[in-house]
Amino acid sequence: MEYPSKLIEEAVNEISKLPGIGKKTALRLALYLLKQEADETKGLAESLVNLREKTRYCRICHIISDSEDCTCASMHRDPAIICVVEDTPDVMAIQNTAQYNGYFHVLGGVISPLEGIGPNEINIESLLKRVNNPDSQVNEVILALSPTMEGDTTAFYIAKKLKDSGIKITTIARGIPIGGELEYADEITLGRSIVQRMIYDGK
Amino acid sequence: MEYPSKLIEEAVNEISKLPGIGKKTALRLALYLLKQEADETKGLAESLVNLREKTRYCRICHIISDSEDCTCASMHRDPAIICVVEDTPDVMAIQNTAQYNGYFHVLGGVISPLEGIGPNEINIESLLKRVNNPDSQVNEVILALSPTMEGDTTAFYIAKKLKDSGIKITTIARGIPIGGELEYADEITLGRSIVQRMIYDGK
Repeated sequence: MEYPSKLIEEAVNEISKLPGIGKKTALRLALYLLKQEADETKGLAESLVNLREKTRYCRICHIISDSEDCTCASMHRDPAIICVVEDTPDVMAIQNTAQYNGYFHVLGGVISPLEGIGPNEINIESLLKRVNNPDSQVNEVILALSPTMEGDTTAFYIAKKLKDSGIKITTIARGIPIGGELEYADEITLGRSIVQRMIYDGK
Repeated sequence: MEYPSKLIEEAVNEISKLPGIGKKTALRLALYLLKQEADETKGLAESLVNLREKTRYCRICHIISDSEDCTCASMHRDPAIICVVEDTPDVMAIQNTAQYNGYFHVLGGVISPLEGIGPNEINIESLLKRVNNPDSQVNEVILALSPTMEGDTTAFYIAKKLKDSGIKITTIARGIPIGGELEYADEITLGRSIVQRMIYDGK
């Protein structure tokens, strides 16, 4: 595509590097910014640079945070449970349910040999240290990873590493989603939900 | 939604001001940037600020340009035709067809009473000046506006203003798109394409 201005072309090239944004959308966004006040573009640009340069990861739980000691240390949470997740959005999703009051541990990815990500590339070592620390009060680790090949591999690896610690290892329930229709559920989910059926408690 | 970091929250708020981008997509983009090199975010931010602050509009044709005199003045184009479009992407789309070799005039919008945009808010006055200039060689104005209520109103307004100039006023052909299937065409397009049928020339 031929652009009427070098500035537009550069902006379109930069914007379209973002995932899920093609050249046409990038051009639409660039033209949108041109029609807004200059302050709006400045605010957007500054917030992006600030985000990238000032964001830190908590030393303990690896959640994205404004400092290296996130609020996890000072929160009134149950010190007996750690919920292991892949990334920060998972923490936010679980927090939003208001059903969990323990601590988190963000792996920052999952084991994926195809992408060259092994156990040492993600925060597994620090999880083991956290759990095996003599001062630790942890007695349960919840593996809340996506039910993909990579997620399952990671869960299996962590469970094996924690086997000798005597800590209870759980995983989030798999099954038919609430409101989901049986006939549209995939075979594997439906099959596992029958094998792993639960006592009906009326809830 | 509760964010683990103020920086993330600010970035998500800024990104989600862009059209068609909600909070979830904004969060995904912010986390993507966090995983890339810091230079990438800097490059994106700089290109946006540069775009907004340095972009100019050509004094003559109002195309977005790097300076106030765009290449339109120096191009070897047919000075007899001006194609009137709503905005810069339309110029790019028509350029890409390689079927047009005249000049352009970008209105920068269309007349829309609902949004408070009247004839004086868009570049109609400068079009009339351009056409009525004694040195002008223009003998045809093509109205290439979208076939919406606003586009039609704008075309009607410009045509009325140019009526006494004796200049030929044309509009881009409306009809069934090439490769389009008759049975899926909307009634109005199909109806107009019958009323405005053309002599078959085998092309």
